[in-house]
Amino acid sequence: MFITFEGGEGAGKSTQAARLAERLRVAGQSTCLTREPGGTPLANGLRALLLSPDASLHALTDVGLITPPGDSPSSDEPDEPVLPLTEALLLSAARAQHAARIRQWLAEGANVISDRYADATLAYQGYGRGYDLATLRMLTQLATEGLLPDLTLLLDLPVAEGRARKRQAHADGGEWNRLDEEEIAFHERVRAGYLALAAEEPDRWVILDAMLPVDDLAERIWQIVSTRMK
Amino acid sequence: MFITFEGGEGAGKSTQAARLAERLRVAGQSTCLTREPGGTPLANGLRALLLSPDASLHALTDVGLITPPGDSPSSDEPDEPVLPLTEALLLSAARAQHAARIRQWLAEGANVISDRYADATLAYQGYGRGYDLATLRMLTQLATEGLLPDLTLLLDLPVAEGRARKRQAHADGGEWNRLDEEEIAFHERVRAGYLALAAEEPDRWVILDAMLPVDDLAERIWQIVSTRMK
Repeated sequence: MFITFEGGEGAGKSTQAARLAERLRVAGQSTCLTREPGGTPLANGLRALLLSPDASLHALTDVGLITPPGDSPSSDEPDEPVLPLTEALLLSAARAQHAARIRQWLAEGANVISDRYADATLAYQGYGRGYDLATLRMLTQLATEGLLPDLTLLLDLPVAEGRARKRQAHADGGEWNRLDEEEIAFHERVRAGYLALAAEEPDRWVILDAMLPVDDLAERIWQIVSTRMK
Repeated sequence: MFITFEGGEGAGKSTQAARLAERLRVAGQSTCLTREPGGTPLANGLRALLLSPDASLHALTDVGLITPPGDSPSSDEPDEPVLPLTEALLLSAARAQHAARIRQWLAEGANVISDRYADATLAYQGYGRGYDLATLRMLTQLATEGLLPDLTLLLDLPVAEGRARKRQAHADGGEWNRLDEEEIAFHERVRAGYLALAAEEPDRWVILDAMLPVDDLAERIWQIVSTRMK
């Protein structure tokens, strides 16, 4: 089975994905746990470039893989905006590598659990940033070659709650990246986008209340997954 | 004017692009010289990742931008093949940033000369690797938002000659990357692909004999460009 977790920041996707993977392993099921953007070495490199472009470019310059500033008319400009189109293409490139890997795992008989997948591009770049949904659907279809999850679990959470959790995690030393800095209205559009996507394909999506205590949510997820597997 | 140089390895594109840019500047014309893949800091980063994936990933891992091996089921696998689709998407992402920059330069009234552009993707990934041309055309159209060169100069050269020149340059300390290691048949397909593309749009393309001595070729290019500019 190929299962994906979707939802906004702070909804607990990583935690629940790990809990589910562990439970499946304990139940004797071979299970691969992965995430997007990322999931393969190259895709992780693209994730780094997308989420921390300046630091990544410095690292590549330091080892001589990028010629230092001065070799082109543009390379002395520090702040290059990442176009929505570029972001969509980079995520698609990473996803192409990742989808190929997922297909391989599934072919080997493993379950695959991914913390985010193609739907995240539609929610974030499409609904969130307002980039053309038809183009994004075309790109995700191209990158995945049509590989869809059997089950997508949407951890739905009010934006204010998600941001409060994320800020707390950051204060505790957690990751904080470019996407976390987007304004509230953006995250509200992402949330509404996820709910719209779930409504389009009710057989694939299950909407879960991420305000539930972690253990209760994990139990609810386990019931859904174990029922589907029978 | 937006002018691109295309052609196989060792055809002298970089040299001729620089000569033409210099001549335009001497003639009092503001001219930006750029190249693909690359042309902006982010696009240069993608170029590095595409041409030297292992070294790039190590550099990103060393500064902590990629979590070291062990965090995902796949990250301990050293040799991740770059899918043709991924390559096309990465080149398109780099090109989207580059095309936006080129538009800006043109809007500022500068000439832009690029050492390779979108046609290279059709020639290399399409004709060379056999990846679906219709998909590649769709991706290049998407990435460039329809920005085509006013003039494309194809430096055409027998494959054996190009490879001999490239090997010599390498022996003299020049760059040598993943694409240079492709087999002869691949480079023959690329050459034939370029000639087919030129035949499709004879108004935009001019085919030049790259066996000509460097100075003669530069003079011929100058005649073509200065005539078109009038």
